[in-house]
Amino acid sequence: MQLYIGNKNYSSWSMRPWVLMRHFALPFTEVMVRFDSFEPGSCFKQTLATLGAPTGKVPLLVDDAGTVVWDTLAIAETLAERFPALPLWPRDAAQRARARSLCAEMHSGFGALRSHCPQNIEAHLPEVGARILAEHAAVQADLARLIEMWQSALAQSGGPFLFGAFGIADAYFAPVVGRLRTYALPVPAPVAAYMQRVWDSPGVAAWVAEALAEHEFLDFEEPYRTAPV
Amino acid sequence: MQLYIGNKNYSSWSMRPWVLMRHFALPFTEVMVRFDSFEPGSCFKQTLATLGAPTGKVPLLVDDAGTVVWDTLAIAETLAERFPALPLWPRDAAQRARARSLCAEMHSGFGALRSHCPQNIEAHLPEVGARILAEHAAVQADLARLIEMWQSALAQSGGPFLFGAFGIADAYFAPVVGRLRTYALPVPAPVAAYMQRVWDSPGVAAWVAEALAEHEFLDFEEPYRTAPV
Ligand SMILES: N[C@@H](CCC(=O)N[C@@H](CS)C(=O)NCC(=O)O)C(=O)O
Ligand SMILES: N[C@@H](CCC(=O)N[C@@H](CS)C(=O)NCC(=O)O)C(=O)O
Repeated sequence: MQLYIGNKNYSSWSMRPWVLMRHFALPFTEVMVRFDSFEPGSCFKQTLATLGAPTGKVPLLVDDAGTVVWDTLAIAETLAERFPALPLWPRDAAQRARARSLCAEMHSGFGALRSHCPQNIEAHLPEVGARILAEHAAVQADLARLIEMWQSALAQSGGPFLFGAFGIADAYFAPVVGRLRTYALPVPAPVAAYMQRVWDSPGVAAWVAEALAEHEFLDFEEPYRTAPV
Repeated sequence: MQLYIGNKNYSSWSMRPWVLMRHFALPFTEVMVRFDSFEPGSCFKQTLATLGAPTGKVPLLVDDAGTVVWDTLAIAETLAERFPALPLWPRDAAQRARARSLCAEMHSGFGALRSHCPQNIEAHLPEVGARILAEHAAVQADLARLIEMWQSALAQSGGPFLFGAFGIADAYFAPVVGRLRTYALPVPAPVAAYMQRVWDSPGVAAWVAEALAEHEFLDFEEPYRTAPV
């Protein structure tokens, strides 16, 4: 299988399936389609068109039969189905239904947090984060919902991850953990502890290490910085 | 199982799982949570809070064990899993991966079409549609992508529905078919024929008949009308 991804420092959607596949040691080759811009003529868009990516976005999974799967949720379900021996989703049907609800909520939600606090793993922007939080009630609401969601899942499962062992839901929220870190958004201690466990988990740690080694500064992904650290 | 939905004339997300469950004759009780407004103190939001809907949105599936599943994609996957004898997803793994990609794309995409052309089954607004299309390139792009997506799926499967027989993907796009009808957006003849088949399919036809019988006019869902027909 091939997984096409964007820059590790910036591409939050790419991070989700990569982290999942790495965590469960699924066999895959990573192909990076570097971000130059998202304009129609960009190298990024041209490469994706060549690959048959109908939406011009990453990530993209191409399996050994050549089937192109676009979109993180479709990739997650497809992997869960193809590796039934691995607990990508929780084993318990009710827990699985909850895990799917959480991921779907992430997939179409948290728009304020996503637009105001774009992924930037190497950046540390606590002042920016404090300002954004003060100015945007919608970001406050997104943060409050995340805290409530994580606390309630951890309470139900007993942890250490959202549904017990690390799975799709944790991979799905790993980029969000990264945003909360970059912008230093305030969370209660048990949530901070969960975030640290996510950050230390092997798939996530591997992605973060490679993101930090990238050293590629892209202006159009940097609303808050003018130069790298 | 109980399915909580909004007003049939207006609630596009509610339409998806209802149409699916009705098409496949799945056992469920419908409970309508009427839209009054989406403000925090509204009866709609209060009712959903009582039901344990964490996002305050419909649809919501509550199964016989009391598990609450929010969000249409999680509901679709949960139903597919619980009724494995029924072809909710295509039987072929590659086709299933494509169907999931299409639904996920719908779930997080087509924002321009969704915001400019809100669902309104009983309305007929061709002039509004022509104006929106002329003024908004993003709506044109959404429409072009839909046409391309549907044509390519129909060509691959041979029809009559996106992946052969009617399934989750068709239920997922049924409200979009409704929008294209309400706003009379132009499509090629084979796409119009597919849209008609969706409209005539039993689950969709049942929803539409009940939507037309509602006769409830909600100002905040009516950017383009001041009175019902
Ligand atoms: N809903 C998609 C979102 C994918 C997405 O937005 N990817 C970004 C990179 S993180 C992208 O490719 N953007 C290019 C563009 O917006 O033109 C998914 O879940 O995979
Ligand atoms: N991603 C959700 C979207 C659900 C949704 O937006 N539902 C609308 C009605 S069609 C709603 O309840 N809106 C209330 C609000 O936005 O406050 C899903 O797929 O179920």
